[in-house]
Amino acid sequence: MPIPTVLDCDPGHDDAIAILLAAGAPEIDLRAITTVAANQTLDKVTLNARRICSAAGISVPIARGCARPLVRTLHVAGDIHGESGMDGPAFGAISVDVVEDHAIDVMHRNMPATLVATGALTNVAMYLQRYGTASVREIVLMGGSTERGNTTPYAEFNIYVDPEAAQIVFDSGVPITMIGLNVTHQALVTPAVVARLNEIGPLGRICGDLMTFFAATYREVFGFEAPPLHDPVAVAQVIDPTLVTCVEAFVGIETVGTLTRGATVVDLHGRLGREPNARVAVGLDVDRFFDRVIDAVAQLT
Amino acid sequence: MPIPTVLDCDPGHDDAIAILLAAGAPEIDLRAITTVAANQTLDKVTLNARRICSAAGISVPIARGCARPLVRTLHVAGDIHGESGMDGPAFGAISVDVVEDHAIDVMHRNMPATLVATGALTNVAMYLQRYGTASVREIVLMGGSTERGNTTPYAEFNIYVDPEAAQIVFDSGVPITMIGLNVTHQALVTPAVVARLNEIGPLGRICGDLMTFFAATYREVFGFEAPPLHDPVAVAQVIDPTLVTCVEAFVGIETVGTLTRGATVVDLHGRLGREPNARVAVGLDVDRFFDRVIDAVAQLT
Amino acid sequence: MPIPTVLDCDPGHDDAIAILLAAGAPEIDLRAITTVAANQTLDKVTLNARRICSAAGISVPIARGCARPLVRTLHVAGDIHGESGMDGPAFGAISVDVVEDHAIDVMHRNMPATLVATGALTNVAMYLQRYGTASVREIVLMGGSTERGNTTPYAEFNIYVDPEAAQIVFDSGVPITMIGLNVTHQALVTPAVVARLNEIGPLGRICGDLMTFFAATYREVFGFEAPPLHDPVAVAQVIDPTLVTCVEAFVGIETVGTLTRGATVVDLHGRLGREPNARVAVGLDVDRFFDRVIDAVAQLT
Amino acid sequence: MPIPTVLDCDPGHDDAIAILLAAGAPEIDLRAITTVAANQTLDKVTLNARRICSAAGISVPIARGCARPLVRTLHVAGDIHGESGMDGPAFGAISVDVVEDHAIDVMHRNMPATLVATGALTNVAMYLQRYGTASVREIVLMGGSTERGNTTPYAEFNIYVDPEAAQIVFDSGVPITMIGLNVTHQALVTPAVVARLNEIGPLGRICGDLMTFFAATYREVFGFEAPPLHDPVAVAQVIDPTLVTCVEAFVGIETVGTLTRGATVVDLHGRLGREPNARVAVGLDVDRFFDRVIDAVAQLT
Ligand SMILES: [Ca+2]
Ligand SMILES: [Ca+2]
Ligand SMILES: [Ca+2]
Ligand SMILES: [Ca+2]
Repeated sequence: MPIPTVLDCDPGHDDAIAILLAAGAPEIDLRAITTVAANQTLDKVTLNARRICSAAGISVPIARGCARPLVRTLHVAGDIHGESGMDGPAFGAISVDVVEDHAIDVMHRNMPATLVATGALTNVAMYLQRYGTASVREIVLMGGSTERGNTTPYAEFNIYVDPEAAQIVFDSGVPITMIGLNVTHQALVTPAVVARLNEIGPLGRICGDLMTFFAATYREVFGFEAPPLHDPVAVAQVIDPTLVTCVEAFVGIETVGTLTRGATVVDLHGRLGREPNARVAVGLDVDRFFDRVIDAVAQLT
Repeated sequence: MPIPTVLDCDPGHDDAIAILLAAGAPEIDLRAITTVAANQTLDKVTLNARRICSAAGISVPIARGCARPLVRTLHVAGDIHGESGMDGPAFGAISVDVVEDHAIDVMHRNMPATLVATGALTNVAMYLQRYGTASVREIVLMGGSTERGNTTPYAEFNIYVDPEAAQIVFDSGVPITMIGLNVTHQALVTPAVVARLNEIGPLGRICGDLMTFFAATYREVFGFEAPPLHDPVAVAQVIDPTLVTCVEAFVGIETVGTLTRGATVVDLHGRLGREPNARVAVGLDVDRFFDRVIDAVAQLT
Repeated sequence: MPIPTVLDCDPGHDDAIAILLAAGAPEIDLRAITTVAANQTLDKVTLNARRICSAAGISVPIARGCARPLVRTLHVAGDIHGESGMDGPAFGAISVDVVEDHAIDVMHRNMPATLVATGALTNVAMYLQRYGTASVREIVLMGGSTERGNTTPYAEFNIYVDPEAAQIVFDSGVPITMIGLNVTHQALVTPAVVARLNEIGPLGRICGDLMTFFAATYREVFGFEAPPLHDPVAVAQVIDPTLVTCVEAFVGIETVGTLTRGATVVDLHGRLGREPNARVAVGLDVDRFFDRVIDAVAQLT
Repeated sequence: MPIPTVLDCDPGHDDAIAILLAAGAPEIDLRAITTVAANQTLDKVTLNARRICSAAGISVPIARGCARPLVRTLHVAGDIHGESGMDGPAFGAISVDVVEDHAIDVMHRNMPATLVATGALTNVAMYLQRYGTASVREIVLMGGSTERGNTTPYAEFNIYVDPEAAQIVFDSGVPITMIGLNVTHQALVTPAVVARLNEIGPLGRICGDLMTFFAATYREVFGFEAPPLHDPVAVAQVIDPTLVTCVEAFVGIETVGTLTRGATVVDLHGRLGREPNARVAVGLDVDRFFDRVIDAVAQLT
């Protein structure tokens, strides 16, 4: 039976592909898409969710969530995702609208379900505080790193944007799988992958255009030869847990440090003497992962 | 026209009197009472709200809110308010129940209104994040201090319990009036005040018994000769702003300090170069304040 | 027998009077004056120490200490003490020089002694780390507050400038007496005190001119009617402990807080569950204090 | 001309080899060895410095430095270096003593020189604060990491022990080369290296015994197949800079974080917008490095 899933995201180039993967994979029953400010403002990322769903003919409810992090000022990633948050492709007419309800109420209506989070964790934290933890089957999130970060030396973007929300989530007791940069940096969209996407058809070409833009900013900002497809790895872990190798570990969120705000402190060697609170991804079957992405886009075409 | 008001509280001895003052004063249109974990657990403080409303014949909706602070572990004040959170009086049968909806949804339904907050600011912060700031006319809160605290040397209890929530509230842009310990420590419930309460009738005697218990813990923990009636001062400020003298100031919340967590850093002399974000109480007309409390209790009798 | 004393200071208007009080009081055997950057740069405060000693005929060794706080960037108090650090009087020719040795080596040579510190605690911390704690009889310091601060709402200047040094000192185990703003703000230099100083002679008039300048900046910055004579209270406590009422308490230094850096967290009510590490001044015999100051200036004339 | 060098260390298995490398390499003029509490207490590490110098016939002055970090409580590494701080070999009679002067005074006497620091940076920070930065030619330190740490997930031991000292050093403006775990974890002492050491003679066998003990604790605590020879890499960088590849970067020290204390935040991608303050090692010529170590031990035999 497909896994009931709510995807909370901030599209975002890789979020867009994550939406397609979640909608196109038979193992997932995508119940709703909820949006949160992070890669860009809430208005922009919500529009982007509608754009990609319109282009792909996805008709699940889309609900707006939090327009700002719990405590911090919003920090967007215009340098990576462009002014619109999803620069690159030409999108056609928008055919899907948002529902009236708030993201956390839409999440609640679709529980019990798996919550896949690929943006800042503001909505997820708000949900847990408002509705409690009991009805969430598990949270699979793209965020953090066991090694270096990307927004600052030790902080990954999603966690950096709302570290207090991340702390609420990691302290919640809900089963958590953390898909960090240490793994997503293996999911590099090579020209060969882009070529496979472009061959699929119009939706594939939109994906190709997204990746071409993403490749340019990753080359410029980080010197990457090919861009990493972060967010779909979290969806892939739900589709097929054997795609991602995980270990149990304690993950603490640094909310206080002046230079390390938003670092995910992953205690792989048990130095901190704390009980594990997450499964942490440490490996990815890259080829099978990209096969699933390609299959999902083809499925939606 | 009476001022539409929602009272968010954690009864609590002084919260109980604040409820009576809000319900008994003709200047206030008390729309709802919402509860938040702080002085005691959410279950206990909600039961206490029902107890005092039952005793006083108050029939406004009572709604449960957050059972824990946003990020921190709940820290209750059993040493001050006792095991039940409202030790002292013998209460009769409970005749009022809680509504089904969550505190923040009940707040929303009653907006635009003044929000009086006399517990930790968790519910208020959740409301602002979920529903935005536009519909709140103003927030009058008991919390903080321009001088020393009570829970730690520089932190007052309500802010200490949920400093991140306090930071959200003070950063929100909503008009805020802060009623801190520097003023509420002037509102001492002398034996003369207790005597006036006891004379009113059964409800007055419940108030007297509340104050007698409160006096004992304040004497033991802080060496006070008479206990301070914190929370009703916030209600009084709504009833009659001339009762409380205020100045405009920037108030920052210390969320990071290891020894100063929850301190309200009130910049009375403009040393920090920040724009004022609150009106801060610096004086109280003590006699007229107690007259209003006595009048309200009498009104409800 | 006079008490062997080293005065570590950053003159500074009130430091200048502290030097005169230490040199003029028969109860104190002033062994050396050491200087530290705080009110102004090390060059300026050292020049000021030479100025006041030259004017008063004081010939104890003067030694330069640290030019900057341990970890922080130097923050001077030009708004209070002027460009020179001791603006106001016209000083005559300088007749005393500094010794070659560093402050901490000069302190060491004069131990065992009482260390009176009226500037940032950088030198004192360096001494304790370099030479250990055994030889210091006690440290009497002007700094901190049990109430509000002056540099920020909760931080007093001397502690704010070098909070890590303060933490080293308060953690050292050496007997410490802390003379904070809560007491020194009682030592107000009224026009009557200025008149008494001016009557003494040329040195008294220099003191009067110092206090007239100090009065102007305190009026402007803090709205004080008369300026507080902070530093001499620490010297006075050594001269005659009955002048200052103290209580034992734990004092923690906030080094981490973003809005409370340098706060002295004085646990008067035992809320933190820590052992006392200092005697903390809570009262001052103001009249007798000023009599001692006047006597010392007269003695040096 | 050999490079005048002072080696500040906390022996420590790898410090012992660093001493031998510094004393045995013709490119270095080892002027003094100074000790600092870190791997073990000051008494123990000083005894260990005397042990290895006695065994190797090294007669440079050895001076004791700081017995504790500037602000923090001493945290030793008994789990890695054993009870003595240098468990493993049987050492013979001790033939060298310590000088009377403090480490920082001995450093001063030997300046201008290169300062190689392979322990906590307490002595170095004290030197810079006491004597200024002008006379230090450069500081080459083993500490920190561009990736994960060892004492906690993001903190390396030497920096973790005294982060405030590290901050002083990195803020000092002295030319700094940081040799972190990212590089020293390449310097693995394989059984082949141990065999080469054991062949040299008695001193080589002491080295072999040191490495055998070190291998056991690294296997147990971190699961390493062979132990990393951290500290000698810093000495090697002075001997022949071509052994170590470096990049210029800003390195900030996290002193505030609750889970990241002592992290070296190395801004390899310029995300923080700060000027570089260090050369940071990113590569090591492992074979040539071990050749130099073997040569030095042979040279001393
Ligand atoms: Ca995303
Ligand atoms: Ca309350
Ligand atoms: Ca001073
Ligand atoms: Ca070492």
